[in-house]
Amino acid sequence: MSFSLAFKVRDYECDLQGIVNNGVYFNYLEHARHEYLLAKGIDFAALTAQKIHLVVVRSEMDYKRSLTSGDHFDVTVSVERISKVKFGFRQQVINAEGQVALDALVTGVALNQRGRPCVLPELEALIGATIND
Amino acid sequence: MSFSLAFKVRDYECDLQGIVNNGVYFNYLEHARHEYLLAKGIDFAALTAQKIHLVVVRSEMDYKRSLTSGDHFDVTVSVERISKVKFGFRQQVINAEGQVALDALVTGVALNQRGRPCVLPELEALIGATIND
Amino acid sequence: MSFSLAFKVRDYECDLQGIVNNGVYFNYLEHARHEYLLAKGIDFAALTAQKIHLVVVRSEMDYKRSLTSGDHFDVTVSVERISKVKFGFRQQVINAEGQVALDALVTGVALNQRGRPCVLPELEALIGATIND
Amino acid sequence: MSFSLAFKVRDYECDLQGIVNNGVYFNYLEHARHEYLLAKGIDFAALTAQKIHLVVVRSEMDYKRSLTSGDHFDVTVSVERISKVKFGFRQQVINAEGQVALDALVTGVALNQRGRPCVLPELEALIGATIND
Repeated sequence: MSFSLAFKVRDYECDLQGIVNNGVYFNYLEHARHEYLLAKGIDFAALTAQKIHLVVVRSEMDYKRSLTSGDHFDVTVSVERISKVKFGFRQQVINAEGQVALDALVTGVALNQRGRPCVLPELEALIGATIND
Repeated sequence: MSFSLAFKVRDYECDLQGIVNNGVYFNYLEHARHEYLLAKGIDFAALTAQKIHLVVVRSEMDYKRSLTSGDHFDVTVSVERISKVKFGFRQQVINAEGQVALDALVTGVALNQRGRPCVLPELEALIGATIND
Repeated sequence: MSFSLAFKVRDYECDLQGIVNNGVYFNYLEHARHEYLLAKGIDFAALTAQKIHLVVVRSEMDYKRSLTSGDHFDVTVSVERISKVKFGFRQQVINAEGQVALDALVTGVALNQRGRPCVLPELEALIGATIND
Repeated sequence: MSFSLAFKVRDYECDLQGIVNNGVYFNYLEHARHEYLLAKGIDFAALTAQKIHLVVVRSEMDYKRSLTSGDHFDVTVSVERISKVKFGFRQQVINAEGQVALDALVTGVALNQRGRPCVLPELEALIGATIND
């Protein structure tokens, strides 16, 4: 079962076109990922303070419907293995009508104190648990 | 020859990790695209006022190096045809050492007053001119 | 009784210093004001679509405590008359310990289709009702 | 003579109303302050890395004219003493017609590693030099 976080569009997130600016979706997706990880016991800010950096190496997004002022929506998150050190977050933005507004795959790696990709046991456990769901 | 726009990182664009937040690259790319289009006689804000919306339908980004406080960098833009109504912007963020910090392909369409994909003559001319460069 | 809206800090709102960037408070305050107005039947986006612009003419903010990753907080809003056409929003950011993190007074005016300050009946009613609370 | 930094509005900085969102001015002012300090040999990010935090304790802004898509503008900065440990930045946003779009006074303090207000010699020198200009 995937994680889901409820949001409401804030007016300052809308641009000249009267819709949520494309760049803002990246913020929504990041916030949902961090809340998902936190719910699983992985604290992004605490890791950062320990000089373990979770970084995005690739993002793919398909924009299907726009959001505008006042819209309620959900952002879903699920995680999967991409390679030995890369993990992928499948994410969707779902509007109030239940339609997919955005489909995304965000690929990340954990970098250790020396800036080298590393295996994070908490994340490994999470991916393992997810696969066995 | 591709278009290039010079930028400098602003401190408020950096996050907890001390580097430019991933979402901010989207802002850089958008600003460079709009400046590129403007240089070619296509004014995003003026089109919006006429209810012609240039919208992004897909983005792919590969993050290769991070940027941090004070960094100077360039964002390049070139355009290509993806389909009858879709056009693609190939964009790169190049750091001060001349290295690629980010590789992107942003796909857009023009929507007319009724929200339907349309062919924009100025854009057609631009893509044609680019191909013949 | 003043209006209050619950928030949680999102990691992308934190900057190099590891705390919420000063500019972001402006976003929090604006979102709380718009939600307050909406709760009172005044829709900022709908007014904008009618070319009635609610604009800020002055802001004063006292930053007392910082917020950081994961913090829960509330933003309060109450309205008062400043002059015939100016209205003031008293706003506070209250942290999870009940302490004031920020004290603000944001002064606004409504501009009509010709860009002239105007009296907005809904807002007049709101200010009157507030005073009589 | 005051410091001045040239900017151009980026489309993603404009909101529903088609003008630069009020919160964005805070970003402009911050960037201009940091560039001013850097020009005077005070590096905000380097200080932050040393756990010396320059923080804003109060801001006052008067919004006089709006900026919109494509506008060129300048942000000026000058510094003055407010108290033993507080310093004030007088800042203006000047539009392309030479008119004041925004008038601001931003008050800051330097906090040392223990989070206590402290006197920063570089800043003292700067304020002294400014007064003697």
